[in-house]
Amino acid sequence: MKFSRAAIVVSAILLLGACSVPETEVPASSSAEALPSWNMGSAKDAIVDFVARVTDPASPDFVPGPERIAVFDNDGTLWSEQPAYFQLFFAMDRVKAMAPDHPEWATQQPFQAVLENDMEALAAAGEHGLLELVMATHSGMTTEEFEAVVTDWLATARHPTTGRPHTEMVYQPMLEILDYLRANGFKTFIVSGGGIEFMRPWTEAVYGIPPEQVVGSSVKTAYEVRDGVPVIARLPEMNFIDDKEGKPLGINSHIGRRPIAAFGNSDGDFQMLEWTTAGEGARFGMLIHHTDADREWAYDRDSHIGRLDRGLDEAGERGWVVVDMKRDWASIYPAD
Amino acid sequence: MKFSRAAIVVSAILLLGACSVPETEVPASSSAEALPSWNMGSAKDAIVDFVARVTDPASPDFVPGPERIAVFDNDGTLWSEQPAYFQLFFAMDRVKAMAPDHPEWATQQPFQAVLENDMEALAAAGEHGLLELVMATHSGMTTEEFEAVVTDWLATARHPTTGRPHTEMVYQPMLEILDYLRANGFKTFIVSGGGIEFMRPWTEAVYGIPPEQVVGSSVKTAYEVRDGVPVIARLPEMNFIDDKEGKPLGINSHIGRRPIAAFGNSDGDFQMLEWTTAGEGARFGMLIHHTDADREWAYDRDSHIGRLDRGLDEAGERGWVVVDMKRDWASIYPAD
Repeated sequence: MKFSRAAIVVSAILLLGACSVPETEVPASSSAEALPSWNMGSAKDAIVDFVARVTDPASPDFVPGPERIAVFDNDGTLWSEQPAYFQLFFAMDRVKAMAPDHPEWATQQPFQAVLENDMEALAAAGEHGLLELVMATHSGMTTEEFEAVVTDWLATARHPTTGRPHTEMVYQPMLEILDYLRANGFKTFIVSGGGIEFMRPWTEAVYGIPPEQVVGSSVKTAYEVRDGVPVIARLPEMNFIDDKEGKPLGINSHIGRRPIAAFGNSDGDFQMLEWTTAGEGARFGMLIHHTDADREWAYDRDSHIGRLDRGLDEAGERGWVVVDMKRDWASIYPAD
Repeated sequence: MKFSRAAIVVSAILLLGACSVPETEVPASSSAEALPSWNMGSAKDAIVDFVARVTDPASPDFVPGPERIAVFDNDGTLWSEQPAYFQLFFAMDRVKAMAPDHPEWATQQPFQAVLENDMEALAAAGEHGLLELVMATHSGMTTEEFEAVVTDWLATARHPTTGRPHTEMVYQPMLEILDYLRANGFKTFIVSGGGIEFMRPWTEAVYGIPPEQVVGSSVKTAYEVRDGVPVIARLPEMNFIDDKEGKPLGINSHIGRRPIAAFGNSDGDFQMLEWTTAGEGARFGMLIHHTDADREWAYDRDSHIGRLDRGLDEAGERGWVVVDMKRDWASIYPAD
């Protein structure tokens, strides 16, 4: 399955509905032993050293609890993003599910391409076509209806190459980082180009991150009272794209203070790491480099998805830690 | 000092910068004794009864901790809003401070009106004039610069009739409600028509509400790297108005789940209470009715500021609690 860069960009901006999933149990842990899936090496040392410095009241780098904000990209940083963003699979499945009510889609692009599994035609539809796909499948319903659709899809959909539920393709080493940071007084946020309401229904159960700590792309919404019942309607118009320069802006809007740690994997995360690590005091930036074609995928500078080029060039001079997935991670997925 | 309704509307939508203030100590308390400034009566009984029901695991109304979200309007609900929104005083002081760099303002409305303390002319400038005032004073700087300006202003400005710092004109009974709810596992949010970055620099110290739990109106922003230093610039264009129908939308965007309790004082809070109390299970809506001309101010249906008309009409049928400030509050401000 191949997708154009435009397709990728747009698939990254799909969006989503409200939620309320029970909180996961977060095991308390405060030492490096909390990171069993990280092989010994400079990447593991760097995160352990950073956490030790900002949590030790005697350290010149000590940071008070409320200011320990850590932000995480999602696609390619907390879960896989190949052979395409999982939210694009969702949109395609929605087109197929909705097709009986839209006979016109049989001969109308980009819908026809999806219905015929014609990835070349889908790519040819370009950014505009993808935006059409998103709007048709992610709007025209209430936030609560959308949440139900996302939840149902995640419960039944399987990844095209691994056959696993998408929520089982999260990275075990990153789950350990999330727990480790929270056990050390950090508040963890997702800051993703993905749809905010596509993520919120499941981030609490899967990552221990509640909906109010999820930042993402969004469509415009409208408040309406229908037959006496108030609803929030999702409109077919983009509101905010939480990618590249949008990430610091989303952080400012939702969090209102600068994080001290940022984790990403692509050049779409560059500005988030730049903004985070330019602050005063101890700062931490980490890029996940996908180097493991056997256990996951290997891609970077030339990838249409999760392209990592400027980040690789500048990580050294900026003091960002580059994780070599093949070398640094003892396991990839929780089931491994 | 008098202001037109348009002036009020616009003063309600002023906006603001990032921040990081140390968290306040929140005394733990879990009984009605935590509300000493509330006189015995139906309003106090209602909140105590609600909290008891949603926190008792044996109650059919029990609500799990993560879903205990409470939202609070700010102007007129957590602090005073007379004779005008405090943020309008801020904007006017900013015009005076910035005037030396803007000689053209001496003959240009609405700036001339502010410089000459001519409230009639300011009112005559209408909504458009007020928006000009906001844009001139709340944009054209970085978020960090704006935070510093707000912090400096709050430290020195005094309210025109009480002579007190504005942050000492917060309501003691509502501070007790905030503490009481947090002691019972609630997460407390501000959802205000006021500027999100006007509030964030001080809500943690004054209310115990961290910046990431403040929702408000905002201007558009842009991420820029200036001489190698990344900044977030505040642009002279409204991004979001967090009032009336905007409040449920702001809640959905920032919090991502429906609150179970909402506190307001004006018809600008109507939709927030409507959205909150329309959810399933136990819900709580409260309106502060300003009835105390001696200790604070008395106003409702005909007020240009904090108008409360539809809310008074429909509170009964909707099951919302109306607080009679004169009758229900033993004290108003912390210093009383």
